[in-house]
Formats: sequence, structure tokens, C-alpha cells
Amino acid sequence: MFDRRDFTRLAAAAFAGIPFLRSPAYAEDGPDGAVPPPQTGHEDEMAGYDPKVRWMGDERIAMLMYPGMTVMDLIGPQSMFAAMMGAKIHLVAKSLDPVTSDAGVTITPDATFETCPRDLTVLFAPGGTDGTINAATDPATIAFMADRGSRATYVTSVCSGSLVLGAAGLLKGYRATSHWSCRDALAGFGAIPTEARVVRDRNRITGAGVTAGLDFGLTMVAEMRGRTYAECCQLMSEYDPDPPFKAGSLKTAPPEVREPMVKMVASFKQAAEALAANSGPR
Amino acid sequence: MFDRRDFTRLAAAAFAGIPFLRSPAYAEDGPDGAVPPPQTGHEDEMAGYDPKVRWMGDERIAMLMYPGMTVMDLIGPQSMFAAMMGAKIHLVAKSLDPVTSDAGVTITPDATFETCPRDLTVLFAPGGTDGTINAATDPATIAFMADRGSRATYVTSVCSGSLVLGAAGLLKGYRATSHWSCRDALAGFGAIPTEARVVRDRNRITGAGVTAGLDFGLTMVAEMRGRTYAECCQLMSEYDPDPPFKAGSLKTAPPEVREPMVKMVASFKQAAEALAANSGPR
Repeated sequence: MFDRRDFTRLAAAAFAGIPFLRSPAYAEDGPDGAVPPPQTGHEDEMAGYDPKVRWMGDERIAMLMYPGMTVMDLIGPQSMFAAMMGAKIHLVAKSLDPVTSDAGVTITPDATFETCPRDLTVLFAPGGTDGTINAATDPATIAFMADRGSRATYVTSVCSGSLVLGAAGLLKGYRATSHWSCRDALAGFGAIPTEARVVRDRNRITGAGVTAGLDFGLTMVAEMRGRTYAECCQLMSEYDPDPPFKAGSLKTAPPEVREPMVKMVASFKQAAEALAANSGPR
Repeated sequence: MFDRRDFTRLAAAAFAGIPFLRSPAYAEDGPDGAVPPPQTGHEDEMAGYDPKVRWMGDERIAMLMYPGMTVMDLIGPQSMFAAMMGAKIHLVAKSLDPVTSDAGVTITPDATFETCPRDLTVLFAPGGTDGTINAATDPATIAFMADRGSRATYVTSVCSGSLVLGAAGLLKGYRATSHWSCRDALAGFGAIPTEARVVRDRNRITGAGVTAGLDFGLTMVAEMRGRTYAECCQLMSEYDPDPPFKAGSLKTAPPEVREPMVKMVASFKQAAEALAANSGPR
């Protein structure tokens, strides 16, 4: 495909795509899907990189944004996807107006439902609570998800983003996961709720709550670029987790944490179940 | 301080502050430092929550933003801080113009160096590469960090954000950590480079690379609100990590990952060392 000199240039660009090393120049991508120019200053260092690794690609990744989304659901996977050199990430919303997350972070989309490419490698939905229920009952959002999801190579979500997939009819007959508070509600969409950090069923790949987006993101990078590339992303993002407490799941959280939190999510769980009952298989 | 009825209302607001449950209404905080109005719809559910937990607070948290920052460094901790009801998070930049990260995510600041409160509970800096070197050599940024850092209750960073602290003279004589690629460079600022996921020395609390922001964030919440509150955040963000590979540190990454990545960061490591040599103790 290309000679050694070309490979070195491309590999240099590849690693410039890893967020930790990405120079600001790379924030401005070229024309849609184009390979960014390889002037990275890393050319000399890249000699000898393993040519068996798929450093280059041309994946098209659309990440849905909507008011009230949980921004960590979006950024965990985005931080891994952004390391895939040559891939183009589209932050897609109903309009180009900035979108404010549940926790008050305002992000500017770079594509709309109209301008987002029609044929995607990855379609992704982040979660949230009220905002997610709103997105999952918004006709334009659901039409967009159903359309792109019908052709995307991978249809994916993190956290309660799977409610949006379910509402778009994309989980019927598929095993899928979600945040622990609304995983069971997926059954209302005809999905098979499955308890795991990352659940894969054919081309549907769903992650559990919020921080599961990191495990999901690495799984996706490995799927698209192979294990070594994903491990490079893991090392660069120093993903060697060491939580100070062991309260990250219903099984490990102590009762004084689990009980109030289960109570706290009761109304959201109900809203998710009502959503599924109204938009599930008919 | 307040009776049971007040506590229930406040606790309800507290849990509305947890990102996973936060309603869009809470994205718009009231006047600076004010307690958000407690109309959450969760009042009835909150009866019986443990009154020994510090659900309410009035912390002022300033998170620096600059072009080329690594957005995951910012959002990991932000997702934990945002769950602290009553706390006010300021996303601070040189101006209110949107700031684009190394990976192409554009976030709108809500405070400038001028409008950020003078007395902070937490001053925080995220990392990056070229953008971080630029921020750490920008006089206005360094003046802001040195000023607020001189009075903040906690002076903190994740990833190479510790280079910004170091350049502002905030790490002299303190143990601190950073991304593995530039941890040793901290010595040039008079700091004591320390290998750990989260390093605390008196009121300086620094996290390792990128994803260490989650462990850092939980550590900070526990510091400010106690362990139970932090464990609630951990359960709500389902932080029960399960990386698909074991390549997240130099010790665990296989040679075919470690060697090229070490080579890759060589020029950034050099830039960090040069920065420290030029802005360290004189």
C-alpha cells in the first residue's frame, strides 16, 4: 500500500492522534474523512514502529449529544476514539448550538442530524437521566438514530444511552447493558438485559454506567484497530485504575451507600420503564 | 443547623447534584455560591438519608482550561466534583471564548482569570502536551495559578497539569505526580516526583495520567465530604473498572506497546524538562 517512508509518516500522524500527544493543529481536521497532514515533528522517532499494526484508518464515528447528557459518558469513549489516526469523530446534535450536560459542561457540536455522514462505522449514544428520556422521546433524534443505526457497522452506547438505542428500535432481540439503575428496563424494548461491563451481541456493543465508557472505548479501539493499538491507547491514557473505595457496583457497595442510591434512582427507573413500555415492540 | 424537614430538602438537592441524576435545571446554578433551589421532585424519596453525611457544602472549585488541554483530564474529576451539592465549579480560561482540547472537543468556559473567585477550595489544572507547555509559559495563566494557588485550600492537578502547578511555583518542596512521561521532569521545579495513582503532600494533591482523574476525583470528594459521599459518587458513576487489557502502566504494558510509546513521548519529555529548567527554583 505504501513504502517504508510513507509508513513512517503515517505512523507519526497516527500517534499524533493519541490525545495525550495530539498537537493543537490536529484539532482542526481537514476535509471530512481526509487524512490530516503528517507534519508532526515526530517523523524521526517513528522509524521502526511495527508495520503489522493498523495505525491508519478511515472510520466515521458519530457521537450523539443532547441537553442533559452525562458528559463523562461521552468523553470516556471519545478520549479513546480520538487516538485512532485517520478516523473522523462527529459530535452530532440537533443543531450546532452548544449543548449543556447534566453537570453543566457546555460542548459545541460539529455536525447536525442533516450533516452527519449517512454511512457510519460507529453510531454512539451517551446516557443521562431526564435529558436521556427527552432525547429518547424526541422524534428527530429517534429518526436520526434509527436511520444511521440501520447501516452503521457498530451500534453502541454507554450508560443509559442504551435507552436511546432501544427507543429507536435498535436493540430488539439483542443482549445489551446500561447503567445499573435502568438495565432491566431494556427488556421493554425487546432487548435482553445483560449484566456486564461491556456487552457485545453481533454489532451491538453497549457499556454499563458512566465510567464503563473507558472499558467500552478500549474494546472498540481493539475491535477496529487491533489489540496492540488499543494497548497503546491504554498506556498513553495511563488506564491502570485504582479506585480508593470498592463501591462501584451494587455487589460491592456497602449497605449505607447501596440502599439510599437504589432509592434515589427509583423514579428514574420508573421513567425508563415507562419509556420502554411506550416505545418497545408493538 | 437545620431541622429534619430542611435536611430532607437539602439532601434531595444534594442527590440531584450527582451527575447521573442531575436534572437540566441544575445546570444553571443560581448566584455565585448560592444553594440551588431544591425543587427536585425527589423530596419524598429522600426521607431517612443519613444525616451524618455532609450532603451540603459551599466549596468553590476552579478548573483551568486552555487550548490543547486533554479533555478527559478535566472531565474525570469534574464528573465527581459535580456531584457535590452546593459546591460551585468554575471552568476558568483566559477569556470566555470556547476552548478546544487536543482531541477536538470544544468547551465553553464560565469564568475568566478576572471573574474567578479569589478564595478557592480547590484549584485544579488538567494536562496535555504542547498546549500544556504553552499554558505553563503563559504569564497570565501562571500569574492566575500562582495567585489563586497561594490561598486555595487544595492545589491540584491530573496528568501533566502538574507542569502548570510547577511552573507557577506551587510544587517547590512537595511530593507530586504526573503522567508517566513527564513525572521525573517535576524535579526541575523543586518538586519530589512520586510514583502513585494519587499523591498527597499537605494540601497538594496530584493525579497520574489522564484516567487517574477518576481516582483523584473520588479522593477529593472523600476529602471534602467524607467517604460515604464519595462511595455514593462511585456507585452512581458505576466506577467498577474492568480494563480489557493490562497495558495501563509502564510495568504492565508488553514490550511492543511500552517501547514505541516511550519513544513517542521522548520529545514531550524533553520539552517538559526544558520547561522545568527554565521556570524552576532560581
